[in-house]
Amino acid sequence: MIERTLIEEFSKIVGSGNILTSEESLKAYSYDGTTTWMHQPDVVLFPKSAEEIAMVVRIANTEKIPVTPRGGGSCLSGGPVPIQGGIVLCTTRMDNILEVDRTAMVAVVEPGVVLMNLNNRLAKEGFFFPPDPQSFLSATIGGVIAENAGGPACVKYGVTKQYVRGIDVVLPTGELITLGGKALCCGAGYDLLSLFVSSEGTLGVITKAIVKINWLPADRKTILAVYDDVAVAGENVYRVLENGVIPGKIELIDNWVINRFEDMMQVGLPRDADAVLIFEVDGPPEAVEVETKTIVEVATKHGAREVRAAKDENEAGRYWAGRRAGFAAVFGAAATVMAEDVTVPRGQIPALINKCRELSKKYDVEIVMLGHAGDGNLHPSILTDISNKEHYGRAASAMDEIFDVAVALGGVISGEHGIGLEKAKAFSKTIDPEVFELMKKVKTFMDPNNIMNPGKIWPQL
Amino acid sequence: MIERTLIEEFSKIVGSGNILTSEESLKAYSYDGTTTWMHQPDVVLFPKSAEEIAMVVRIANTEKIPVTPRGGGSCLSGGPVPIQGGIVLCTTRMDNILEVDRTAMVAVVEPGVVLMNLNNRLAKEGFFFPPDPQSFLSATIGGVIAENAGGPACVKYGVTKQYVRGIDVVLPTGELITLGGKALCCGAGYDLLSLFVSSEGTLGVITKAIVKINWLPADRKTILAVYDDVAVAGENVYRVLENGVIPGKIELIDNWVINRFEDMMQVGLPRDADAVLIFEVDGPPEAVEVETKTIVEVATKHGAREVRAAKDENEAGRYWAGRRAGFAAVFGAAATVMAEDVTVPRGQIPALINKCRELSKKYDVEIVMLGHAGDGNLHPSILTDISNKEHYGRAASAMDEIFDVAVALGGVISGEHGIGLEKAKAFSKTIDPEVFELMKKVKTFMDPNNIMNPGKIWPQL
Repeated sequence: MIERTLIEEFSKIVGSGNILTSEESLKAYSYDGTTTWMHQPDVVLFPKSAEEIAMVVRIANTEKIPVTPRGGGSCLSGGPVPIQGGIVLCTTRMDNILEVDRTAMVAVVEPGVVLMNLNNRLAKEGFFFPPDPQSFLSATIGGVIAENAGGPACVKYGVTKQYVRGIDVVLPTGELITLGGKALCCGAGYDLLSLFVSSEGTLGVITKAIVKINWLPADRKTILAVYDDVAVAGENVYRVLENGVIPGKIELIDNWVINRFEDMMQVGLPRDADAVLIFEVDGPPEAVEVETKTIVEVATKHGAREVRAAKDENEAGRYWAGRRAGFAAVFGAAATVMAEDVTVPRGQIPALINKCRELSKKYDVEIVMLGHAGDGNLHPSILTDISNKEHYGRAASAMDEIFDVAVALGGVISGEHGIGLEKAKAFSKTIDPEVFELMKKVKTFMDPNNIMNPGKIWPQL
Repeated sequence: MIERTLIEEFSKIVGSGNILTSEESLKAYSYDGTTTWMHQPDVVLFPKSAEEIAMVVRIANTEKIPVTPRGGGSCLSGGPVPIQGGIVLCTTRMDNILEVDRTAMVAVVEPGVVLMNLNNRLAKEGFFFPPDPQSFLSATIGGVIAENAGGPACVKYGVTKQYVRGIDVVLPTGELITLGGKALCCGAGYDLLSLFVSSEGTLGVITKAIVKINWLPADRKTILAVYDDVAVAGENVYRVLENGVIPGKIELIDNWVINRFEDMMQVGLPRDADAVLIFEVDGPPEAVEVETKTIVEVATKHGAREVRAAKDENEAGRYWAGRRAGFAAVFGAAATVMAEDVTVPRGQIPALINKCRELSKKYDVEIVMLGHAGDGNLHPSILTDISNKEHYGRAASAMDEIFDVAVALGGVISGEHGIGLEKAKAFSKTIDPEVFELMKKVKTFMDPNNIMNPGKIWPQL
């Protein structure tokens, strides 16, 4: 519980209309995109500036009150869940796109800018911000950076980290610092900026960001490849790349997900396929033409049952609408879904898929498969029910084994969702103990009172 | 001085044929690519494995002996100069390309692999490693990573940081850790990997690296644009980008450098031009065609006196051979050259160039200009003579002002050469004091005895 005098002080800082303390509103800020984690904060604050955030954090640091930063709340690892209570610092009022600099090819944004709004604005000027998490309708840039978001475009365009040129950040001790800037090589000295990207709100609060933006490609085309074996689909991902084509996007969807999509929205995917790959190639029209042809040839040669280029925008749009509904489709299908985001080197995708099938049988649980296969980032999702202890236990064991397999195959347990609460146990188990200790030291060194998003990544602290 | 018993111990670790202690050989390891810095080590060691490096570093840490890692020694900021004596740890015997993984599209290399050798090997398999420092004939991957090397290809392909997927590193305390891996999103937890990239050997010794590799483009074309005003050339860089073309390379060369090239090797550049831009576009042939046309149109429209696409490989090769001779051309022209690598946001290139001209007049020193203008990274180089105190003093004052200008324009004092010895004073002066202190804390936290490359970046320690 936070003392009333402090609540009043916070109210003065952010303004009395920008603080929530009622039971029902605290409830609304007690969860995120996961279905497993829930905890109420003591207070929710909606600051309007970096200075307000710095004032709040300074008090929190002195009083040792937990501070959980939050944007759209679409996180899939429990990141914005205030698991130890305290303050939720919600950045949604800081939603200005401050500048689109055409010569430096960067956008300067506040942390609460919703990804879709950024891309709508950028599109007007011919640009786009490539990282493409499925949560783009609600995810805010602050969260996108804090979680180092990915998506199907990573295969060609890389992850968020590669687009962050500069940030302003309030440190756990309340200082406001600026790292990086508009230039490409703004990193004289140590790269502290990258330390904050993917730090999941545990090292500070991002209050502004300068992100690299790309020109919208002149043309794009969608190709659908159909497989009788999901592992062959997985292999086709790197067969295409091996032939010199780097598609703008690659998404893998298995039989279960295909049928769920068709039930929900008649995407037009073949219900009897074991899996499909959806490719998008983009670039100058001439290149798009050539690459489309190559994908059709390569996929046909390497075991696809059918490969077809979408005949128009409408057909392409349907396939991608399906992909965007992916998590909704999966999450709606069971009381609890363990939707993970293990990543393996591309060549190991078939091995990971085959192992997931074995584990599905071994533990008698449904493991459905979709994901941004282009960069080896898959979302094996286990359908279960947290209220059915026996079933949930089997699901959890299966998931533990999936984590172990991913690491054994040279990958990691989280490609884009973060560790948060969801994977903290698996993280400590699967990472090299020396590296684990070094990272933990960074946390205690940066945040001596452990006020920034406590309980996440480091439940031990 | 290192005790004889310790020298014997080091000799046992690396083998008696892999240690240098004679006066003349120590001299050979007392300098780098700069002309200003020189200091002899007490001993030079040529380890063959990470384990040997770890053993050496553990002893050095216990005995508080400085350890300066060194690869090809082509650094331009004094990085491999053992300014406090002690051990030079030279990685040139660790020069194996361990693996080229075609499906993950990564190469696994030892730190002593010379960049050109890596690219020669990769070319055989159809790949290349995009970062393109001029020192590629001798620079080793360990140094390329430690300095976060760039080059003219950065404008399209980014800097080294964007290509490092994983490293093994011996910490200053002697532990060997692995960070990252073959997969794109191998960064669960904090991004410690990026902390080592550009850390200039002050946080540990890189003993292995996994780097992303790209397919060689199917086609490429070189375009030469000639200008009567170097500032207009600077502006043309972003005019081209604004028109949707991201060339694979852009290089700017001013009148002084043009004439120097022509004296040396008859490149075929117009001696009366105030500056030229050399562009290279790459990609599918159809796209290369379109982009070449756009560059010719845009440059013509925006003030180029003449724009021409190289008619064949031979002509293109001559231009790029010129660029590759850039530093040799400049360094050979004066007793001492202050060759800096300030970086500004692209839109500020003309302002930086104009300011350098003013400073040239103000301090009556020759400031020549070349650089990878595509990402705002320029190399204003001042010709002087360290033995002429009065002239050198004026040159140093001019350089200090160039640093200030770069920072005032939203840039940084070093885009790719590192801070090292050369820019340590300017670094402490131009960086936000809070950030400076935070970085320094990272150094003392990681290297409590300050044994790793002491004197670099942090002469205060």
